Amino acid sequence: MWTFDNPPAAALQKEYGFTPDKEWLDHLRLASVRLNDGGSGSFVSPDGLLLTNSHVASGQLQKISTPEHDFRKNGFLARTRAEEIPCPDLEVNVLMSMENVTARMLRAVKPELPTAQALKARQAEMGKIEKESLDATGLRSEVVALYHGGEYWLYRYKKHTDVRMVFAPEAQIAYFGGDPDNFTYPRYDLDMALLRVYENDHPLKTNQYLKWNSKGAEPGELVFVSGNPGTTRRLETIAQLETERDILLPATLEGMRRRVRLLLEYAKRGEEQARQAAAGLLSAQNSVKVREGRLRGLQDSRNMDVKRKEEAEFRAKVTGKSAWQRAYGSAWEDIALAEKKHRKLFPTYFYRRIGGYRMPGSALNVVRYVTEVKKPDALRLEEFHEAGLESLRFRLLSPAPVYPELEEAVLADNLEESSKVLGPQDPFLQAVLAGRTPAETAHAVISGTKWADLGFRKSLLEGGEEAVAASKDPLVELARKVDPMLRELKKEMDDQVESVEVEAGERIGQARFAVYGKSAYPDATFTLRLSYGTVAGYPMNGTQAPPFTTLYGLYERAFAFGLKPPYDLPERYLKRQSSLDLSQRMNFVTTHDIIGGNSGSPVVNREGEMVGLIFDGNIESLLGDYLYDGAANRAVAVHPAAMLHLLRKAYDADALADELEGGKPGLAKKN
Amino acid sequence: MWTFDNPPAAALQKEYGFTPDKEWLDHLRLASVRLNDGGSGSFVSPDGLLLTNSHVASGQLQKISTPEHDFRKNGFLARTRAEEIPCPDLEVNVLMSMENVTARMLRAVKPELPTAQALKARQAEMGKIEKESLDATGLRSEVVALYHGGEYWLYRYKKHTDVRMVFAPEAQIAYFGGDPDNFTYPRYDLDMALLRVYENDHPLKTNQYLKWNSKGAEPGELVFVSGNPGTTRRLETIAQLETERDILLPATLEGMRRRVRLLLEYAKRGEEQARQAAAGLLSAQNSVKVREGRLRGLQDSRNMDVKRKEEAEFRAKVTGKSAWQRAYGSAWEDIALAEKKHRKLFPTYFYRRIGGYRMPGSALNVVRYVTEVKKPDALRLEEFHEAGLESLRFRLLSPAPVYPELEEAVLADNLEESSKVLGPQDPFLQAVLAGRTPAETAHAVISGTKWADLGFRKSLLEGGEEAVAASKDPLVELARKVDPMLRELKKEMDDQVESVEVEAGERIGQARFAVYGKSAYPDATFTLRLSYGTVAGYPMNGTQAPPFTTLYGLYERAFAFGLKPPYDLPERYLKRQSSLDLSQRMNFVTTHDIIGGNSGSPVVNREGEMVGLIFDGNIESLLGDYLYDGAANRAVAVHPAAMLHLLRKAYDADALADELEGGKPGLAKKN
Repeated sequence: MWTFDNPPAAALQKEYGFTPDKEWLDHLRLASVRLNDGGSGSFVSPDGLLLTNSHVASGQLQKISTPEHDFRKNGFLARTRAEEIPCPDLEVNVLMSMENVTARMLRAVKPELPTAQALKARQAEMGKIEKESLDATGLRSEVVALYHGGEYWLYRYKKHTDVRMVFAPEAQIAYFGGDPDNFTYPRYDLDMALLRVYENDHPLKTNQYLKWNSKGAEPGELVFVSGNPGTTRRLETIAQLETERDILLPATLEGMRRRVRLLLEYAKRGEEQARQAAAGLLSAQNSVKVREGRLRGLQDSRNMDVKRKEEAEFRAKVTGKSAWQRAYGSAWEDIALAEKKHRKLFPTYFYRRIGGYRMPGSALNVVRYVTEVKKPDALRLEEFHEAGLESLRFRLLSPAPVYPELEEAVLADNLEESSKVLGPQDPFLQAVLAGRTPAETAHAVISGTKWADLGFRKSLLEGGEEAVAASKDPLVELARKVDPMLRELKKEMDDQVESVEVEAGERIGQARFAVYGKSAYPDATFTLRLSYGTVAGYPMNGTQAPPFTTLYGLYERAFAFGLKPPYDLPERYLKRQSSLDLSQRMNFVTTHDIIGGNSGSPVVNREGEMVGLIFDGNIESLLGDYLYDGAANRAVAVHPAAMLHLLRKAYDADALADELEGGKPGLAKKN
Repeated sequence: MWTFDNPPAAALQKEYGFTPDKEWLDHLRLASVRLNDGGSGSFVSPDGLLLTNSHVASGQLQKISTPEHDFRKNGFLARTRAEEIPCPDLEVNVLMSMENVTARMLRAVKPELPTAQALKARQAEMGKIEKESLDATGLRSEVVALYHGGEYWLYRYKKHTDVRMVFAPEAQIAYFGGDPDNFTYPRYDLDMALLRVYENDHPLKTNQYLKWNSKGAEPGELVFVSGNPGTTRRLETIAQLETERDILLPATLEGMRRRVRLLLEYAKRGEEQARQAAAGLLSAQNSVKVREGRLRGLQDSRNMDVKRKEEAEFRAKVTGKSAWQRAYGSAWEDIALAEKKHRKLFPTYFYRRIGGYRMPGSALNVVRYVTEVKKPDALRLEEFHEAGLESLRFRLLSPAPVYPELEEAVLADNLEESSKVLGPQDPFLQAVLAGRTPAETAHAVISGTKWADLGFRKSLLEGGEEAVAASKDPLVELARKVDPMLRELKKEMDDQVESVEVEAGERIGQARFAVYGKSAYPDATFTLRLSYGTVAGYPMNGTQAPPFTTLYGLYERAFAFGLKPPYDLPERYLKRQSSLDLSQRMNFVTTHDIIGGNSGSPVVNREGEMVGLIFDGNIESLLGDYLYDGAANRAVAVHPAAMLHLLRKAYDADALADELEGGKPGLAKKN
């Protein structure tokens, strides 16, 4: 997970005799995109065609669907440009430049400041840098803390918000094997989607796209993954990992399991409800499996022993040199003390919430928006700094359909869970419920609100504080009521935990540079990273997992389970089997170090060609949040041969296939 | 692994509403066979057709092969009865009756006898019972100690020695996936062979055969496995398991690894050498994988904790009742003391040997045979009791080809290993090597012997003690020289360890009956057992293993590995793929408790129909030697649909397929 400013050139040269030059790196960076729904992607044609996973696009597929047309479930293919459907609220970012602003950040945060004020000063300076950059360049600008604050970088993004759906296969083939097979290998998933980026209502013309290579890569060949890994915790201290293991993971896991149960129940209400719940269910099941894997990993004492040994060695080196000990030595103990407070504060912080499906969070943001924008930038809550407002408004004013029945069910269930944990006497809950049951409360709020009406949300944002204060909308009233209480909780957590840990984390980050140099890459931060590795099978289940799977395996697993869900196949795969070449490679595994957020990342070879599409990790990779184990940790990708072959033979999408292969860029045949 | 005299009728009735009656049990028992090469099988036609695994038949396939025709590698199909090839030294046994002889055994072994004499008395009485039975019935008769001597049973077998090879597929499809996939699942192996039993030069006519049911069984359906599990150690004490873990397994594992390395080297000498080594290599690799799995299992403290808890509870119950404590209480301590001696004696006992491929062991048996047969039955070494002599002579006078070059290589390597462990000053080795290197010794012995000549072996057996004493054959001379030394070692081990443990084991067996009743089945003893269970997938690798695999999966795994060995396919599978129905079920997994020796066992349904052919266990089953874990322990079987389909479509063996399906029993078409 190397940053693009610091590629592992020496290691690459030594291991593979290859040094990526600036042109190679710039091209790959500019062809890579971040999808702000939470994933990665890449441009794959000169006409703005963008390749990502179906599961990354599943939120947008859900949002463009209607009760009559369930594109998420049944797939979607635009046979002409005119048929391409705009995604309602997808923002796509291309990383245009990176600038080291560590010195400026350190100057702004005086060492003598108390930690709580230092946190504020840090956030204010970040907001200022971002705003200046936005004004100067017009680009989305974000300051990123790398190496836990060992470095600060200003990342500038070109922002695209006119993104249209071009192709997605049926959910059943995109996530073949469903929840059981998720995070495992061998796999047989066509987890791809094609979107097209538009500018001024025309397809984006660009040279920064990856050429398609259907041959893919062979085992042992050097290949790269360029994408945006979300979060890792490899540089966190043992005290932080113990809180994660004992408090945070069990609570979020239980919450996610509850969400899965709720959505499964909700889906039973009818076909339309099942359609509404589908994308959220997929995501919740995924979260459960990830967390189960992480918890299993942290509860395995062998793994914690590795981490403990690592930390002990690091601390011993720091202690060994008095200058280091003076500057960094107390950081671990500071974090350990803060974690004690974290453990105490966590339940209130986590369970005091009005967590619904989407509406309550959105309402709280609008209520805060109108207040925050009136303050000087430096004094605002973090999410409301000037540089980020446009993207925030884009999300708040999304025209995507809302599902009131689903919103009500989720809100009721969330309040129910909070009541169970906090008890009915909790003042926050008493304020929210006001004597009603969670179900009554949710019903009153959701059935009474006009939130589904985009015009209503617009009128509040435009009307500002007065409009919000005057609103009798029950959802707005609820958000207004909880806002001060939640602000107070946030402040308490910031003052006692966050500010201490950011400061101490910064010192540990600096200590790491002092002791080990910049020899490792920073923890993942949902920013662009470059990973290198090879296609490689691995030891599994007493034998070996193959480097590739083929279309034969898709039918094998389907028939081995008697075509029962989640191993049923879309009709076309049964009807057209005889016209498919089943020996085509379908998925493959690589040694790349990836994590959630990397979904949709391209795999590229030395020539910078697209040779694969990352969509998952194997079960062994779930520990990757804390530790990377090269022997068994594998990334799972869709093979370009399968994508092309199935586009042509299963979907009659020759125009798209031609565009990907560069044969007829820009032309779309009518079928 | 229930004995046929004690089927779990109550459990079956309760769980499945099925009680097998005497007729059902008798039929299944009489249709089941034991192959004395070390496996199981069943009659599947009224004309003596016998189904087993290719890997069970691989020794015989090797023996009927020649440098010109490698039937083991390339497969074999007799298109007419006349083309069926006699197996040179395969004996097949059908269990005709079972008789409880516990009372008689207990009478014969007086409690006041010292343990060493008690062991002799026990062996003498077993020989006597067997001889009386043989004389009275003409049947092969064996006394079996069940429940570690808690019971003794006389088993009488009908013996068949005219067994002919009818069909075996190519090794590449029989063991598709080779050593890596061995003991794993999902699998795609056509591990079948068909033999035919002859009587008086005519195919055996029998009603005791299993009707073929190509539909197989569905998940959850009650099915049975009838076969001869080899050995389990589940009732052994912790002291015994610790010796197994610390001493026996590591030594035999290292020996087997050495054997694998040697055979791989030997096979590199040329095509003919590769052919000679093939069956032995398969078996040695299998042994390595089994032992690795067992060692891993025993070294996992969680498993040993289960065993320790089990033993502690059992012993506490014994201690809790003074009569039990008096009768059985000291048995564990007696075994623990004997195990201390066992650990000390083991290296000499194990590494003083003249272990070759087959010839040296055979020579030692002939040298002992001529001496032992002159003694009264009760005084003979165990293997030379009258009742077993005919089967022994059958093996010693096998017309199977011998491979002197291979014999020399193995003998040299074995002596080399012994020298390394025991040191060159060891008196046994000094006697064997007589100043030569292991390689020189092996060369002198093997190049000088006439053992390959069947007439020579016959002349020794017929010439008796005088002929053997007078022989100048270097192999016979070697066997003569080591015989007294090995007898002495054996006596030491018997007196100090074996006799103590047999006696104490008998008391523990009786204690088990006293405490728990006859609620569990005895440890496996390579005698006929009945296991019940269902077809069922299981949790694996983060997801679920399917209950079945299909022919699609065969091609998947082959192409996923680029058709590279051990994932290459026989030519016909590539040429004829389009005429195969790839959705046919190929292998499947069941919950049956099986172990080595069960290979070739039929899976039968309530109607007593053949619905599968056991050929392996999954990786989780390797612990089954000590513990059975129903959640993940699975038996792996070939599906009847695949056998039939491939016989017809891949091998054009319609006559055989018809005979199996009962359509045209007894008729063999010419193709």
